[in-house]
Amino acid sequence: MLTAEDNNLLCRVGRGTPMGEALRQYWLPCLPSAELTDRDGEPVRVRLLGEDLIAFRDSDGKAGLIQNACPHRGASLFFGRNEEAGLRCVYHGWKFDISGACVDMPNEPAESNFKHKIKAAAYPTRERNGVIWAYMGPLAEPPELPFLEWNLVPENQVQISIRYQECNWVQAVEGGIDSSHVSFLHRWFGDEANARGEGNMYRAKDSQPRFEVADTSYGVLIGACRDASDDSYYWRITQFLMPFYTMIPPQGADPAVGGHAWVPMDDETTATWTIGWHPTRPIVETNRNRNLNQTMDLVREYNLDPNVAGVLPKTSKAGGAWRPVANPRNDYMLNQEIQRTKLFCGIVVGRTQDQAMQESMGPIYDRTKEHLGASDTAIIRVRRRWISAAKALKDDGTPPPGALEPEAYHVRSVSQVFKRNVIWTEAARALWQIKPGVPIHAV
Amino acid sequence: MLTAEDNNLLCRVGRGTPMGEALRQYWLPCLPSAELTDRDGEPVRVRLLGEDLIAFRDSDGKAGLIQNACPHRGASLFFGRNEEAGLRCVYHGWKFDISGACVDMPNEPAESNFKHKIKAAAYPTRERNGVIWAYMGPLAEPPELPFLEWNLVPENQVQISIRYQECNWVQAVEGGIDSSHVSFLHRWFGDEANARGEGNMYRAKDSQPRFEVADTSYGVLIGACRDASDDSYYWRITQFLMPFYTMIPPQGADPAVGGHAWVPMDDETTATWTIGWHPTRPIVETNRNRNLNQTMDLVREYNLDPNVAGVLPKTSKAGGAWRPVANPRNDYMLNQEIQRTKLFCGIVVGRTQDQAMQESMGPIYDRTKEHLGASDTAIIRVRRRWISAAKALKDDGTPPPGALEPEAYHVRSVSQVFKRNVIWTEAARALWQIKPGVPIHAV
Amino acid sequence: MLTAEDNNLLCRVGRGTPMGEALRQYWLPCLPSAELTDRDGEPVRVRLLGEDLIAFRDSDGKAGLIQNACPHRGASLFFGRNEEAGLRCVYHGWKFDISGACVDMPNEPAESNFKHKIKAAAYPTRERNGVIWAYMGPLAEPPELPFLEWNLVPENQVQISIRYQECNWVQAVEGGIDSSHVSFLHRWFGDEANARGEGNMYRAKDSQPRFEVADTSYGVLIGACRDASDDSYYWRITQFLMPFYTMIPPQGADPAVGGHAWVPMDDETTATWTIGWHPTRPIVETNRNRNLNQTMDLVREYNLDPNVAGVLPKTSKAGGAWRPVANPRNDYMLNQEIQRTKLFCGIVVGRTQDQAMQESMGPIYDRTKEHLGASDTAIIRVRRRWISAAKALKDDGTPPPGALEPEAYHVRSVSQVFKRNVIWTEAARALWQIKPGVPIHAV
Repeated sequence: MLTAEDNNLLCRVGRGTPMGEALRQYWLPCLPSAELTDRDGEPVRVRLLGEDLIAFRDSDGKAGLIQNACPHRGASLFFGRNEEAGLRCVYHGWKFDISGACVDMPNEPAESNFKHKIKAAAYPTRERNGVIWAYMGPLAEPPELPFLEWNLVPENQVQISIRYQECNWVQAVEGGIDSSHVSFLHRWFGDEANARGEGNMYRAKDSQPRFEVADTSYGVLIGACRDASDDSYYWRITQFLMPFYTMIPPQGADPAVGGHAWVPMDDETTATWTIGWHPTRPIVETNRNRNLNQTMDLVREYNLDPNVAGVLPKTSKAGGAWRPVANPRNDYMLNQEIQRTKLFCGIVVGRTQDQAMQESMGPIYDRTKEHLGASDTAIIRVRRRWISAAKALKDDGTPPPGALEPEAYHVRSVSQVFKRNVIWTEAARALWQIKPGVPIHAV
Repeated sequence: MLTAEDNNLLCRVGRGTPMGEALRQYWLPCLPSAELTDRDGEPVRVRLLGEDLIAFRDSDGKAGLIQNACPHRGASLFFGRNEEAGLRCVYHGWKFDISGACVDMPNEPAESNFKHKIKAAAYPTRERNGVIWAYMGPLAEPPELPFLEWNLVPENQVQISIRYQECNWVQAVEGGIDSSHVSFLHRWFGDEANARGEGNMYRAKDSQPRFEVADTSYGVLIGACRDASDDSYYWRITQFLMPFYTMIPPQGADPAVGGHAWVPMDDETTATWTIGWHPTRPIVETNRNRNLNQTMDLVREYNLDPNVAGVLPKTSKAGGAWRPVANPRNDYMLNQEIQRTKLFCGIVVGRTQDQAMQESMGPIYDRTKEHLGASDTAIIRVRRRWISAAKALKDDGTPPPGALEPEAYHVRSVSQVFKRNVIWTEAARALWQIKPGVPIHAV
Repeated sequence: MLTAEDNNLLCRVGRGTPMGEALRQYWLPCLPSAELTDRDGEPVRVRLLGEDLIAFRDSDGKAGLIQNACPHRGASLFFGRNEEAGLRCVYHGWKFDISGACVDMPNEPAESNFKHKIKAAAYPTRERNGVIWAYMGPLAEPPELPFLEWNLVPENQVQISIRYQECNWVQAVEGGIDSSHVSFLHRWFGDEANARGEGNMYRAKDSQPRFEVADTSYGVLIGACRDASDDSYYWRITQFLMPFYTMIPPQGADPAVGGHAWVPMDDETTATWTIGWHPTRPIVETNRNRNLNQTMDLVREYNLDPNVAGVLPKTSKAGGAWRPVANPRNDYMLNQEIQRTKLFCGIVVGRTQDQAMQESMGPIYDRTKEHLGASDTAIIRVRRRWISAAKALKDDGTPPPGALEPEAYHVRSVSQVFKRNVIWTEAARALWQIKPGVPIHAV
């Protein structure tokens, strides 16, 4: 439970709010590179931390991210002409380069031209392995990009999909660090569950993991401990990395792995990045689509609308714009027959199950009304880190955890059986440290 | 005319408002039993007095009505699994019985389980002859259900339909106690009107009834008096029963009768229950569908969209959800050709005519701008009862009229010709007292 | 740039606001006469300066404009019966004539009838050459209608279309007096531009006109000056007429001309009247449709949805209701292929180009963020006149410019080449004074 004041501090992301300022200390995932296909191609609207921005790839191939409203008279630059190293407003022809400099003011005669006085708000971007990052913070020399594995392996080892959620980012992240819900919300009945590996077996047998948490310099380690054998525990160790990254613990030998970034678009909207990657080889060769196959089996068996399988709009462009087909207006295509027989929750697609829960908590969940237990240990700890980070930045300018330590992000989550007498944070350390090119071995 | 202050007091229904608290002293019609078909069947969303609730029928067949948000972390219980005497949240498996008790907390280990400390808000329900009632008030032992005839006769003598109106409940009730509008809004031109009985004839001849009102312990008697013959009056006596029931005066010999309950969902939405019943025999045998037949004649003659006839979604389930096809976005399918030739108002269906007027007054009608006359006598009186009831409860805890007198509701409206020299409240008393099994004889 | 305070004063139009009161000193274009086709025909909703009104043509053919809410109990008079010299509310039959007098109160008996005490708010109207005008101001004897040429020539010389814009009226007018955007927003590439006349040639050659402005008693003269030859300038002189009229400078010999009225419906919605007229002959004989032809060529060449050509709902009636097909939800049907090859802005229809820019500035543009230059000279001047007019009316009752000078509106815009040594306001005076029946000769 939080006070209304702390809940407000935690959730609000606009410029000038304590958490909004803390978030601005980090590089933020902005767009997949594929959204800005061509040099001088179509600009794309971006909403980030409550700000309306426009992204474009200039003639040199560099990604720009500037305010969407032309500084002249406020027309949207979405309609702008992207040409010759800048984005030109179609209203009066003012042109801006990726630094926000006004490089042409063709409607003013030479004697009254004041382009050197005009600057659009512009945020530095960097692009790496298929992702465009943005820095909205105060440093003239921002730090390096975070060493997140999914953005360090080659692009063909990564699959990214994005969906917009109609809720605040905090309750979305909370769903991601909440190992407790996996045994319920995502449970399959019968054979399906058994087919899904040793880790699932432990989880099905023990739906009451003990949670332990440990702070890291960049976030929180979340250990969910279940009985494995008489002298061992099954540990599912999730990395939470500030400000909003999680990685799902791996499963099996040499698996692909997955994770999320919950990027706040504004106080009531979140861009959920779902990332699958394989540490050592192209992602398509892996078994990551087992879930989708099971889902498509259901679609056929129950003669469902194939859209129920969660087909997402592929781009941010007008129309669908990453808005999921299953949404609150259609009750997320809940199927209560399937709920009775196949799936604990009756919503067919895993990510839609999460979305339904998180959105049904309301646009900004009122945490004065909740009742947390031991299973919420991770949530309690992560909130504490967020709130203290925001306050420390505000009170004395302390950079928030991890913001200036990009290399610290070079870690993985862990899923392993350890002897009962070892200390999990010690035993797992070797597993979470990434050795590039070395496959994962998980339970 | 009301002051803005009184208008606000009259209309607001949220918890803690004077009228909201007064309404909470009564049993409220919640759902037709048919909405909760099966034991352990699908839960149904209910919005009542500004509160979001979830209704479900448990394994014993009992109807539960509890808060829609899980007390744990706020996920909607609409997605819940209704099984083994309780509704289980699909997020983490917490389960609640119809008393709101948390009866299972499977994600917490035994040592940290705190289910005995958790209680969802839950409201007592009772079910009688096809209707589920809810009590949201303070009494540990609520009174009996009101002895409303339509809920005391067997279910096969009753037809209930529900529609959501996009306006405050007060202006909806006012439409129901406003006998004056019948001669205008609902008037048919030519033969159609004449075909509709003696009472209609009196009403068509005299569109300026004199109104008299008299308080009862449970509401207000509203007498509309028209000339019948030289020494007699035609009296149409409507029962208004607190807080929001009306009964349409009967017509003819051994008729079915009708009435309404205008149930506030929130300040700007009303669930209008339209109830038809026959006091002594199954409702389908009656002539209640004469209106519908006339309407369908119009549909054929003018080649209208059959939906104009007001086909309503049958259930509260997703999609249509009791939202009428004719609505403000399509001007209620107003047909101005029919307005010129057949129907005074040009909207084809009677209940849509009422809805259009009531909704067009705005979401919450501003009564500082109205100009009431003698024809509004009933409205003035009923408002006075409402406001004084709300104030008396607030000031000294006086229970509002009828709340503790369920048996007083065992009355009917009256339509009869009396000699001019009798006192209407005396003459009609024998007619409005219900003798079960005895048919109505009305004019 | 304006202060937030001045921006607010400038934009708000409700009753009691300084600008709202200033606007109420003028006759306002209300509806094309064709919207009220028949005597006793269908009433039409009108929203003007934040007020909800209903227009109807009575049995004498006179246009009435009264409050949409019945003074009795607030039902909308849109559903009213228009018959026998008045509009009758269908709820209880109260009837109002065009003066707002309650002329019938049939639901009240003679003894309680109080119709003489009831008056609906009603605004005087006048009708001339196909336009219904409304006066919402304080004078018992309003001035004559403004002598605008497009409303003085016979109806067959005029074409009017109306579209609703989803933005404040001020940014819409600013788009209309902003000669600077024409060379950009509306530019065609290649042959198309060259085909469009001498004036266009000057504009294409010189996209940096020098602006000069001069106050008139009724508004502002806006001169855009470009080089023509060594000793001459090309002057495009736009009339701005208070409060919201502009006229596009003419082009060529004996042309039809065009202009706009941006009529504030409320703070965030504007009814944009686009008026084309020919001073001396029926409008259909002219070349006004060259633009549309070019657009339709594009539609065929690029196989576009023909709706992209900006087909507008023809009437204010339910459904489309003057809401353009191209709108912010579909990015105004922006075509980026056409943007690359044919049209500077990629939106196919000229008026949609303007609408997109004006609406993309936001519902009420925040002028604290703008950066105006010499090309915005006209905008700066017109704002000053608006603001000082509103303040003068508020402070000492001074009627705003032109409000009491209807004959001053009998002027035209000008497009001409003058010797460099003449004073433009002198040289053009003879051209902007209208001589009825004499064709325009423009460059």
